[in-house]
Amino acid sequence: MSRLTSDDTISAISTAIGEGGIGIVRISGSKAIAIADELFTSRSGKRAEAILSHQAVYGNIIDPENNEIIDEAIVLIMWAPRSYTREDIVEIHCHGGPVPLRRILDLTLRLGARMAEPGEFTKRAFLNGRLDLAQAEAVMDVIRAKTDASLKVAVGNLSGRLSEQVKSIRQSVLGMIAQLEAAIDFPEDDIEEATAADVAKLINQVKSQLASLLATAQTGRILREGLATVIIGKPNVGKSSLLNALLREKRAIVTDIPGTTRDIIEEYVNIRGIPLRIIDTAGIRDTADVVEKIGVEKAKELVSQADLILLLLDWSAPLSSEDRSVLELLSDRRAIVLINKSDLPPKLELAEVERYSEGRLVLKISVAQGEGLAELEQAIADIVYSGQVGQGEAAFVNNLRHADALRQANDRLADAMATIAAGMPPDCIVVDLRAAWEKLGEVTGDTVGEDIIDQIFSQFCIGK
Amino acid sequence: MSRLTSDDTISAISTAIGEGGIGIVRISGSKAIAIADELFTSRSGKRAEAILSHQAVYGNIIDPENNEIIDEAIVLIMWAPRSYTREDIVEIHCHGGPVPLRRILDLTLRLGARMAEPGEFTKRAFLNGRLDLAQAEAVMDVIRAKTDASLKVAVGNLSGRLSEQVKSIRQSVLGMIAQLEAAIDFPEDDIEEATAADVAKLINQVKSQLASLLATAQTGRILREGLATVIIGKPNVGKSSLLNALLREKRAIVTDIPGTTRDIIEEYVNIRGIPLRIIDTAGIRDTADVVEKIGVEKAKELVSQADLILLLLDWSAPLSSEDRSVLELLSDRRAIVLINKSDLPPKLELAEVERYSEGRLVLKISVAQGEGLAELEQAIADIVYSGQVGQGEAAFVNNLRHADALRQANDRLADAMATIAAGMPPDCIVVDLRAAWEKLGEVTGDTVGEDIIDQIFSQFCIGK
Repeated sequence: MSRLTSDDTISAISTAIGEGGIGIVRISGSKAIAIADELFTSRSGKRAEAILSHQAVYGNIIDPENNEIIDEAIVLIMWAPRSYTREDIVEIHCHGGPVPLRRILDLTLRLGARMAEPGEFTKRAFLNGRLDLAQAEAVMDVIRAKTDASLKVAVGNLSGRLSEQVKSIRQSVLGMIAQLEAAIDFPEDDIEEATAADVAKLINQVKSQLASLLATAQTGRILREGLATVIIGKPNVGKSSLLNALLREKRAIVTDIPGTTRDIIEEYVNIRGIPLRIIDTAGIRDTADVVEKIGVEKAKELVSQADLILLLLDWSAPLSSEDRSVLELLSDRRAIVLINKSDLPPKLELAEVERYSEGRLVLKISVAQGEGLAELEQAIADIVYSGQVGQGEAAFVNNLRHADALRQANDRLADAMATIAAGMPPDCIVVDLRAAWEKLGEVTGDTVGEDIIDQIFSQFCIGK
Repeated sequence: MSRLTSDDTISAISTAIGEGGIGIVRISGSKAIAIADELFTSRSGKRAEAILSHQAVYGNIIDPENNEIIDEAIVLIMWAPRSYTREDIVEIHCHGGPVPLRRILDLTLRLGARMAEPGEFTKRAFLNGRLDLAQAEAVMDVIRAKTDASLKVAVGNLSGRLSEQVKSIRQSVLGMIAQLEAAIDFPEDDIEEATAADVAKLINQVKSQLASLLATAQTGRILREGLATVIIGKPNVGKSSLLNALLREKRAIVTDIPGTTRDIIEEYVNIRGIPLRIIDTAGIRDTADVVEKIGVEKAKELVSQADLILLLLDWSAPLSSEDRSVLELLSDRRAIVLINKSDLPPKLELAEVERYSEGRLVLKISVAQGEGLAELEQAIADIVYSGQVGQGEAAFVNNLRHADALRQANDRLADAMATIAAGMPPDCIVVDLRAAWEKLGEVTGDTVGEDIIDQIFSQFCIGK
């Protein structure tokens, strides 16, 4: 694995940029301690190289060129290998303003560090064996978690819950390969056949383990990325009121922290832990009408991007041709039909709606009165968690890359079953099993190319 | 001072909100360690109360209600009195995402902490004697520093540079009071007179020290708050080009950090360490014309708010009535007259411009060719630093509250001089000197009301 590690020392601002009480510049690599010694003067006069691992020491950050104090700081050293990257790490905790942080970062660069690439600390943690690849990917899932439920899945994967299951499956596959290779050394047909029968049984067990994992993939992806949701309906049916009602009550938990701004989080509505990402929020807000104003083509496109469609009808008016054209947009998509204005006198034909809805859930609500919203939430939760074991202690596949690798491993195992059924010799079965074993290794990063590794870490934030 | 301290334990997110590698929840107070023990499980099984001061320990944050792991974290305990607040402090270093930070903050609140008010950690540091008030105020100046030069002044004040001078002056005043009170015990006239003459000499020394400090106040304020600058001129004279040229080349140093957004910093142009805050940037960008479109009244208002006016004229056109009306807006304000388009054939009467400019600096520039911009910068720096000793190791008054208190102390000392000159008895001089001594104490917080303290810390950020 050392092919990708490097000898240079990296540095970055590791806290979010903005105004904060505390900010951290983090340095990792062989020169980290020497750099700390050049820029840090502890109150007690202790040199950085004399500071024990995990010991926080108070002092000043001083530019050695002109002896100017840049800031007061606490320096925390984590000596290799007892650190995140397994290299020497120096954390400089200074005042959390952009200028002091930038000055200190610049100083570390001047003293021989180079600016860390996005995710480079975690990449080193992976390359040095502190985390496997699935765990490393979970790091960003924790940071970018949108709701409690998505955080829980991410932390579970960070702690190795998914990796352990995949590794155990991979170990089983390796066991089968060993069994088959042993059989190859005994050219008697009956041993080969008996072994193949044994292996077939084991493959079925492993395939059912994979199936359980893959069953979590859709919920996992939604918890990680959000449930892409479109609200459609004719003009004045209550689309923007529904959006506002969802946003008002269910905005992601963090937005009441002062200073939280137009970030990732704010675009999501938190429905029982499910991050709902409303597509074309701006369009709805501007009271643009999906069907009328933006045209049927654009509406079709929005609908095709959505995981869930919330289609609004008006309880106080008969089904119009506009309503029908909106209903027809659904085609085979997952949707909930909402009959709004349930507080007004009925003019809608429920039977007709149900005919058009083709078995989809139809709910009467009144956005104005706040009625039916709890039922809507429950319906959304039922759809997302349907068939799930729940979020208990189970491993969750929350990442498309993992789901793809697991599906392909499953396909290779199916190939192996076919090979066995065709009575092919053990070395042919081994070829299929090896392919499955390789695919499983992509999840944990045991068998994965540099390009994929680079691509994964490039999506990280700077400083992690 | 204990009147304002409280027994309760406070908690807040102490890093900036956003996406970062590391985030910190900080708890301070008598229950901090007990809370840490309830929510943190160290890898080694060590309990929080057994962790040494300034020792970072790795483990999990676990919700004791359902044993759910919220995040991995490093916990750093700083035992009283060796902490920022001089109380027990627990720092929880977790992943720097809004959701994990918020979950952990919520947990600390559930376990008995209360949400810290803005600046409450620093307020406790002040009330517990770790910092004086001028130092405490410098904390936010460090965090909000806009340029290297403003950071340097802030860090100087944080380290007590201003406080030491004020305390030394205050000590001198106290010495005079003691001298006069001793004289009161000797009713012989000649002793009183001799003492008064002595004190007059000392007051003059102190007043000249105060004058040196106050001479830094204008530059100090500009470095802290920015130089409010207005660009005015008739349509198409190059206002938005000048703004863009300044922004492009001189944008505050931090904006090239990925993730830095529309923050405080971005509105400032860094001219040789001076943060220029361009007023009505939006108006200039929208090519609204100050005089024509927004009207003379609004233009007058902008000009009256500005510390500096950059007035643009066109070298390639004769002085128009529009130009003249813009020039008249200057009245007695500080301004630099910029003759733009110096690369085009001249049609402007320089003598006429100089007559209207009333002794102000007139500079020929070409924004299009980038000519004269260095001279403009130098002119701005000259204005801001005029008469300054430079930023060497001198104390800087960068805060209006401090400048006011020092000016009032100076007035009281002048009163004392008048009292002495009028041949009044020593106890009358003492009254004036006590008033000066009180005013000086407002800077360091030795004599200051709760309302002022509350008002100061309410302007801090949360978590500091």
